[in-house]
Parts: sequence; structure tokens; C-alpha cells
Amino acid sequence: MPASNLPSAPTPGNVVIGQSGGPTAVINQTLIGVAKEALRHPQTFKKVYGAIHGIQGILDGNFCDFAEEDPANLEIVAGTPSAALKSVRLKPTPQICAQVLARFKEHDVRYFFYIGGNDTAETAHIINEMAIADGYQLTCIHCPKTIDNDLRVTDHCPGYGSAAKFVAQAFMGDNLDNRSLGGIKINVVMGRNAGWLTAASALARQFPDDGPHLIYCPETDFSMQQFGSDVLKVSQKLGRCVIAVSEGIHGIGGADIINLGETDSHGNKQLSGSGALGDYLAAQLKNFLGKAQPGVKHRIRADTFGYLQRCFPGVVSEVDAREARQAGTAAVEAAIAGTTSGSVAFRRIGDGAAYAIETFITPLHTVAKETKHMPRELLNAAGNDVVMEKLMPYLKPLVGTLPAIGRLAMVGAKKA
Amino acid sequence: MPASNLPSAPTPGNVVIGQSGGPTAVINQTLIGVAKEALRHPQTFKKVYGAIHGIQGILDGNFCDFAEEDPANLEIVAGTPSAALKSVRLKPTPQICAQVLARFKEHDVRYFFYIGGNDTAETAHIINEMAIADGYQLTCIHCPKTIDNDLRVTDHCPGYGSAAKFVAQAFMGDNLDNRSLGGIKINVVMGRNAGWLTAASALARQFPDDGPHLIYCPETDFSMQQFGSDVLKVSQKLGRCVIAVSEGIHGIGGADIINLGETDSHGNKQLSGSGALGDYLAAQLKNFLGKAQPGVKHRIRADTFGYLQRCFPGVVSEVDAREARQAGTAAVEAAIAGTTSGSVAFRRIGDGAAYAIETFITPLHTVAKETKHMPRELLNAAGNDVVMEKLMPYLKPLVGTLPAIGRLAMVGAKKA
Repeated sequence: MPASNLPSAPTPGNVVIGQSGGPTAVINQTLIGVAKEALRHPQTFKKVYGAIHGIQGILDGNFCDFAEEDPANLEIVAGTPSAALKSVRLKPTPQICAQVLARFKEHDVRYFFYIGGNDTAETAHIINEMAIADGYQLTCIHCPKTIDNDLRVTDHCPGYGSAAKFVAQAFMGDNLDNRSLGGIKINVVMGRNAGWLTAASALARQFPDDGPHLIYCPETDFSMQQFGSDVLKVSQKLGRCVIAVSEGIHGIGGADIINLGETDSHGNKQLSGSGALGDYLAAQLKNFLGKAQPGVKHRIRADTFGYLQRCFPGVVSEVDAREARQAGTAAVEAAIAGTTSGSVAFRRIGDGAAYAIETFITPLHTVAKETKHMPRELLNAAGNDVVMEKLMPYLKPLVGTLPAIGRLAMVGAKKA
Repeated sequence: MPASNLPSAPTPGNVVIGQSGGPTAVINQTLIGVAKEALRHPQTFKKVYGAIHGIQGILDGNFCDFAEEDPANLEIVAGTPSAALKSVRLKPTPQICAQVLARFKEHDVRYFFYIGGNDTAETAHIINEMAIADGYQLTCIHCPKTIDNDLRVTDHCPGYGSAAKFVAQAFMGDNLDNRSLGGIKINVVMGRNAGWLTAASALARQFPDDGPHLIYCPETDFSMQQFGSDVLKVSQKLGRCVIAVSEGIHGIGGADIINLGETDSHGNKQLSGSGALGDYLAAQLKNFLGKAQPGVKHRIRADTFGYLQRCFPGVVSEVDAREARQAGTAAVEAAIAGTTSGSVAFRRIGDGAAYAIETFITPLHTVAKETKHMPRELLNAAGNDVVMEKLMPYLKPLVGTLPAIGRLAMVGAKKA
């Protein structure tokens, strides 16, 4: 029985690729990266199957055959957001994982590539452990994807750069809108545990008075009182205020700000798919400002970016797309090199002057289940902004080109 | 005293350009179109001023001088969404309009180009009538802009094509997301009186089972009962359902679905800047389906696209950008040709095989105040969808290129 991480010669057998969890704009780059690279090695990978709806498809014996796909169409699929094999949110109970392993044996599946986040890595990890215990030779490689950028070990996650680009462009537009008409604007951004995506709103800042003027991430405790006085201060200075708030913000000790009442099979509480948090914050803020400035009328609006930010066609980071493909190819290369389990990860290389990455394989258990927060030092002491000079060198290379934004010089106009 | 619409030789004088109402992705194309064309004719247009915050800037004497702007930067500004001169929502009372006219006289302003929607046209119309009554020679030209596409006379409005592109791409992504993970998804789209923008969601349909599966516009009365049974039917057939709902939907006789309580200076009720309508519909639907299918758990989510859809940098219809510029240029050309008042409008020309438009000038009163609904025949009899074969020939040329969407052939997989 081989140890899980020691290289060994690749055993010929069939391949199953699956996608799991929420979609991203580039998750199909990884899928097509795996599929095309696997198809290039028919001596090792006899059949290259796609499981429809992840492990649910494996349980149901619902597979498609990548050899039957038109190669030109595969490239269009690669550029299409959201899981082309369809996705699943199914808790990997020991019973379900045992059934998955039984199906793999039936179909002579020796290679399992599973694309997803930390819950997906957990599923791959459990199946891998079971196969080892069972003496069944199975290679389990997890390919990372998540817009939240909250996987451990890797420098960053495929999917994040494109979602960050959407958030940056959304704030660019919203800042211009707010600059034009004034008022107070709250935008709620995805990110259950980590503020990475909310922090990406800071990319919208091009001129000194550009929003977002305040940024709240789940890495610090949120206080309504502090929020109110922060907004008041910005509003008094600029006559307007654009605010980025993570959907994952919480009070002291992780206390809910609001509770939508639904949880998924992994025990995650519903945060998205509702405007409730934004509306609640707007109402509380109206109340706060009404007391702080009696008689002053504030125009307060809230938008919740919702599902748009995770897979918006046409707003894709070119760097993210390339790296997502690379993650898929690297997974297959690792399997050929004899790696029998692990998760593909990125690290930055070179002297830091030019952005470059390389891939490596990290053990599944280092990525499974747990998530990674933003380092506290990327956020300011007050917990109401990022530290631009620390965040930007990390973030900018991941997002690619952003639209050019221009302002009139306004010679002759009164100063605002 | 010249009649308002008869050509006369252009009188030398100063120009004021203003922007008013909500922003669009291409409103600055029109602005720069007016400014650059006016700067080309210094014998007629002595100074080319921009009023900061529309008529508020005129009242305050807050002007910038376009001759002082860097021409290369003007092109960056043209490609930047939202009003570069900043906007205003100020009710044009007779008193305010009289003050505007007084400022025009003080500054020898003989040409007023005002870019905005129907309320903006109304303001230009009142000022124009006052100038005529006063015997002050003033050319007042309104340049159309609105994402709602609800101005009368013109074939379509600059700003609509880009917002429609955003809505189309958003539904493309959301449909893929929903196809991947299932469930019921409600998306609330802007559009106070007209369903044009909500109808643009239909552009996302590329495969027969693509969403949006249901589309509700303000042109028909909305019934919760009908909505529930429509969704149930789609959900039973496809196992999922994506729904486009206009923020302007209403019950019989225009009854509010919900009431957010705020109104602007033109008497328009607040519809945007809150997720309340989407959340209300999701809750009602959950209730309805809970009764219709006891024991079946439905995953129902709602997103409200909000302000993102009106000026998202990087999601711009190339046709819309070109035509918005053309509208600005045409306004100045009309003034030079001696038109003393009117609104720029588009009409389609040619045999309909290839899309082409020309501009013309329509009297201000034909555009002011009132809005234009979608023709009822573009919506189906049940009021829960558009009529594709009638809408698409009108809509597609305005939106430009959409991202390519691909699907796997999934040979071997079980039929969904």
C-alpha cells in the first residue's frame, strides 16, 4: 500500500474530473486544462470522464466522455463562466465517500481530479484516505477554485482575480455614480470568512477622493456605532461616502449582524441571495445619522452585488484565466509524475519586480476544511480600511487590466 | 422674436453644457461630442462652458472651460461612465428656471445643451419657453440619455444599449450559475415605467433551456398568484428557474408591491438602492411553493442588480458609445444649422437588413415629462415573457457583441 504523497509510476486507468461548490469565471479553464492534458496521455489515462454534478454524478454513474467532445468547442467552454460539468453541494459523509469509491472500482477509475474550494478538498481527502485504507490505488488531486481566495497554503486561488476585477469595476462605476449625485452608498460584497474580495474594492481608487472610502472585512469585529461615526466623518469631509462591506461581517465574538435562517449541507449559513444585510445597515445608518445630524436629510442606498460577482461573462482577469488553466494542467502533470494525492497551489517566484508564479502540490489535509483569513496587517488599525501599500503589490497582478477612468480638469470651476 | 423651431443664422455667444439625472455608461460620449464639436466652431461658440451639477451649477455660477481641457484626456473622459460634469436632481420650478435664464444673460450664454432624460428635457423646455417669452435669443437643445430607454419619439436612447448589455451578461452568468447548482433565482432589474431593460435579459438565451425563464415588466399588472404558478411550472419542468423582474412591477391599477417610502424632487418613488422587492418576492414565493408542494425544499434566492447596471466600466456597447457621441455632435450641428430648440432623436434607416440610424431633431415638448412604455405586443399574452421574434430584431443591434458561451456535448451522460 503506497503512502499518499510518495511518487510512484503512473498506473493506467480511467480518469474522473468533477467540479464542486460555487462557480467562478474561470473554473472551466481548470476543467479544460485537466481534460486536454489527460487526453494527451492515452497510454496512462484510458478514458477521461466528466462527472455531472460532482460526486452526485459519480454516485449516479452519470458521466460524459471528454474524448467525444469537439476540441474547438472545449476552448469556448473554457472561456465560459460557471461549472460546465455542473456542480454540487453534498456533504461528504463516510457512507457517501464509500459509495464513491465503490463506483470508482466498478469503472476502473484510478485518477480523480476534483475542482473546488476547501469543502471540495475535504471530500477528495476523505476519499483518498479511504482508498489508502482499502488498498485501492487511486490518485486524488484537488484543483483550487474560489472567489473568496480563502484556501490555505496557496498564494492565491483561481477565480479570485476575476471576481476581484468585477468588484473593482463595480466600485469604479459606483464611485463615479456617487461622485456625480452624492449621498451615502453601501455595497455588500461576497466573502464568508475572508475579506479578500471586499478588499479588492480598493482597486477602484484612482484619484485621491475616490471611493470606497470605508472598507469592512470579516477579519475584524464590526460595530454599528463605529460604522456610523466613520460614515459621518467621511460624509462631512467629502459630501458623499461609498462603503464596501463584506457579507461576512460580524459583531464581537462572531455575533450575527442579521440571520437569514438557512444553512447548507456543510453547515454554512446563508449570506448571499438576499439584500437584507445591506438594507439593515442602511436603515441603522439612517437612524444613526438622524440622531447625529437632526434635520439633515441623507440619501442612503445599499446594493448587494450578489451572485453576479462570482461568474460574470466578459469580466475576466486574463491572468486568472491563464493560471486557472495552468492549475488544471499541473494537476495532470503531477499525476503523471507519480504524485498520488495533493492539492495544486501557487507560489510567487523571482525577485518580486515582475509578477511570476509556479505551481506545486501540497498535501490535501493542508487545504481541506479550514479557510485562510486575510493577514491582519493588510487592514488598518481601526478596521475600516485596507493598507493600500501592503495590499496593492499582492492584489494588482492578479486582476489584470482595469478600464481607464478619466476626469475633467474643470478649470474655472469652484472647488467642491 | 423667433419661433422656437424655425432655423435662423447662428448668433455668436457662449455655450453651456450640462448633465442631469442618473448616469449612464456613455453619457460622457455625448458630453465630449458636444464639447469637441462646439470647440471646432469658435466663430459661433465663443466660450464652451460645462455647468457643474447641471442647473445647480448654473445657479451657482459654477462653470469649467472646455478650451482649457487636454484633448487627449477628453477622450478618456468620453470612455468613462457617469456624468463627468456631475449631475443633479432639482425640480425646475418657474423660479429656478428664471434664475437660470438670468445667469445665462449675465454670461452671454446663447446655447444651452442639456444631456439627460425626460425630466431634463422638461427643464430645457421650460427655460426655452421662458427665453422666448422674454425675447432673449437662446438655443436650447436636449441630448437624450437614459438606461430605461423610455424617451418618446426616438427609436432608442443612448445609455440603454450598454445597460442592456450589462443585464444580458449578468443573466448569462446567472443562468450558468443556476444551471450548475439548481434552485430558483429572482433578479430585479431597473426600469421605473418601462420594461425595456428587464426585457434585455432575454438576450442571455442561447440554448433552448437557458434562462431567464420568466420575465415580468411594468407594462402588465403583476399577480403574486400568477407568479407563483408560473415559477412552479418552470421549476417542475427544468428543476430550476431564473426570473427577471422589473423594479417597476405593480399590481392592478398600479398598486405598489412594496413601498420604500422615499420620493425625489420630481415625485418619483424610490425603487432602487434596496433589495427589499427581491427579498419580498422570494419570501412570498417560498410561502406559495411551500403550500403548493408541501415537504419539497426550494432554494430561492434574489439579487437586485442595483446601480451597477447603469454605469459599469468595461461593459459598454460599442454601438451605444458611437451613437451617444453622434447625439452630441448632432446637437451642435443642429444649432449651427439654426435650430433654436429641440431634442436629438434617432430613427432607423435602410431596408432593415443592416442596422443603421440617422439623427433628427424633435420639439422639446414631444420628449419632456412623459415617458414611453414598451409596446404591449413585445410581451406575451400571459405577461410573463417577451416575444423573442419581435423584440430581438429591435434589441440585438443596440447591444453589440456579447461574450461567447459554450456547453459540453456531454456524450454518455444521462439526460437531465
